[in-house]
Amino acid sequence: MSTIIDGKAVAEKVLAECGQQIEELQTRGVVPGLAVVLVGDDPASKVYVGSKVRKCAELGLHSRKIELPADATHQQVLDVVHELNADPQIHGILVQSPPPPQIDEDAIVRAIDPAKDVDGFHPENVAKLALEDSSGYVPCTPAGCMRLLKEAGVETSGAEAVVIGRSMIVGKPMALLLMSKEGNATVTVAHSRTKDLVEVCRRADIIVAAIGRPEFVTADMVKDGAVVIDVGINRVEDASAKRGYRLVGDVAYDEVAPKCSAITPVPGGVGPMTIAMLISNTIKAACQSQRA
Amino acid sequence: MSTIIDGKAVAEKVLAECGQQIEELQTRGVVPGLAVVLVGDDPASKVYVGSKVRKCAELGLHSRKIELPADATHQQVLDVVHELNADPQIHGILVQSPPPPQIDEDAIVRAIDPAKDVDGFHPENVAKLALEDSSGYVPCTPAGCMRLLKEAGVETSGAEAVVIGRSMIVGKPMALLLMSKEGNATVTVAHSRTKDLVEVCRRADIIVAAIGRPEFVTADMVKDGAVVIDVGINRVEDASAKRGYRLVGDVAYDEVAPKCSAITPVPGGVGPMTIAMLISNTIKAACQSQRA
Repeated sequence: MSTIIDGKAVAEKVLAECGQQIEELQTRGVVPGLAVVLVGDDPASKVYVGSKVRKCAELGLHSRKIELPADATHQQVLDVVHELNADPQIHGILVQSPPPPQIDEDAIVRAIDPAKDVDGFHPENVAKLALEDSSGYVPCTPAGCMRLLKEAGVETSGAEAVVIGRSMIVGKPMALLLMSKEGNATVTVAHSRTKDLVEVCRRADIIVAAIGRPEFVTADMVKDGAVVIDVGINRVEDASAKRGYRLVGDVAYDEVAPKCSAITPVPGGVGPMTIAMLISNTIKAACQSQRA
Repeated sequence: MSTIIDGKAVAEKVLAECGQQIEELQTRGVVPGLAVVLVGDDPASKVYVGSKVRKCAELGLHSRKIELPADATHQQVLDVVHELNADPQIHGILVQSPPPPQIDEDAIVRAIDPAKDVDGFHPENVAKLALEDSSGYVPCTPAGCMRLLKEAGVETSGAEAVVIGRSMIVGKPMALLLMSKEGNATVTVAHSRTKDLVEVCRRADIIVAAIGRPEFVTADMVKDGAVVIDVGINRVEDASAKRGYRLVGDVAYDEVAPKCSAITPVPGGVGPMTIAMLISNTIKAACQSQRA
C-alpha cells in the first residue's frame, strides 16, 4: 500500500507554525511583511499573486501587492524593487515570474536585497545553499519537497535519490539540499541528455520529478517501494473537464502510485507547499532583520 | 590498453595558451598580476606559493608575494586583501589555504573582490558556477579536471559520472560543471554516507575521486573501460623512499589503471593542472578588468 503524501495537510502544519511565530513577533511589535510585484496581466500570475496575498491576510502578515502595467519599463520595475528594499515594513520581496519580455528578470532578481529575497533566487542565496550556510533563503519548491519528505518519515540519509531536471528553480537546489550534510543522500541529477533514464530512475529510493512534461515518469521507471515527489503541474486538454483541461504532474500517477511506498499527488502535493514555504521564508526574513 | 592522461603535458599546453594571451595583453599595455598572500610558515604552503610565483615569473606575469607572520591578526590579513582589491596592477588575489586558526578563512574569501577571486571560492563565483554564468571564476582543481577530460577526448555528454566527495573545493563544483549544459553528464555525487559505494561507482563511465583517502578507489569499484580522474594527493609513509613517504592518490592506481580506458596518475595528473588554471583565471581577470 502506498502512502499518499498530503501536501495540503503538511502545508497547513507549516502555516500553523508560521502563525505561532507571527504571534511571537507581534508581541515584540514586528509584523512580517511580504511585497508581491506583478507586472502585466497574465491570468495565471494573477491567480498566484492573489492567493499569496490572501494567505498573508489570513495569517496576519502585512502584505502589499504592487501591480505594474504590461508595458512597464525595466527601470520602473527596478525602481519599485529599490523602494521595497528600503522599506522597513517589508521583509520579503517577490517579483512574480514570468515578467513581460522587456523586463530582464535576472537583473531584477539581482536587484532585490538578498536579505529580502524570500524566493531564494538571488546569487547570494544560491551560493549560501551550495555552501550550506543556513542563513540564506532556499527556493520555496525544493524547500517544500524536503519538508514533505521529512513529514512523510522518509529517511534521506544514505538513500539513492534521483532528481529529474536541472533548473535553478527546482532541480539543482533540490540536488544540493539532498546531498548536503543534512540530506546525506546519494544524489543523481538526470536531465534531457541522460542516456538511459529508465535505468537511472529505477535505482532511486527517492525520485523528484521536475521536468515539466506531463506524465513523463512511467511505472517502468520506478522501483518497487520508491518514494516519488512530483513537482510538475501541467495542463492537459480534457474535453470532459469543466474548464476543458485537467492538471497532471510529471508522473503518470495512476500507474506509478501502486508501486510506491509514498507519492505526492497533483494537485494537492508539492503545490500547496510552495506558498507555505514562501510565508515561512518571509517570517525568517523578519526574524533575521530584528537581529541585524 | 589504458591511456595515462598526462597532466603535465596538458598543463604545458594551457600555459602555452596563457603565454600567447599574455603577449596579446602586453601589446595593449596590460600585464596580468597575481598576488599570493601567505600567512605563517607552513612548509607545504611555502612550497605551493613558491611554485606559483615562479610560474608567474616564467610566463611574464606580474606576481607579488605577501608574507605575514604566523601570529598576524585577522584584521591584518583583511587589510592586505583590501589593499590588493584596490591595486590596479593586481588582477588576481589568492590567500594560501589553510591560514593559521586565528584567521577566519571564509571571511577573508568574502573580502576578496569577486572580480579578483581567481580561486573561485567567493560566494559570487560559487553562484555563477551554479547559474552557469561564464563570467565567473571556476575553482582551479575542478576546472583542471574538466580540461583533462576534454584533452583526453572524453565525451561527457550523456555519460554517467560519479563524483566521490562533496566539498566546495572540488566535489560540488565538479558536479555542477559536469551537469551543466556544457558538460551534459548524468552526475551522481557520492560521499561518506553513500551506502553501496562500490555499486554506485561501478556504474560510472567517468569517476572523479576527491575524498582525500589514500588508494580508496579499488579495482572492484571501477567498470571496465571507465575514465578515472584522481584528485587526491596523500602522503603515505614509505621507509624505502628518500623522504620517508611517497605520494599516492585517492585511487589504487596499480590495480585500477589496467581496467580503465584512461586514468590520471599521481603525481603528474590533476596536480599540474591546478596552477595552470590559476594562471588562466588570472589572465581572464586581467581581460575582464579591461572591459569593465
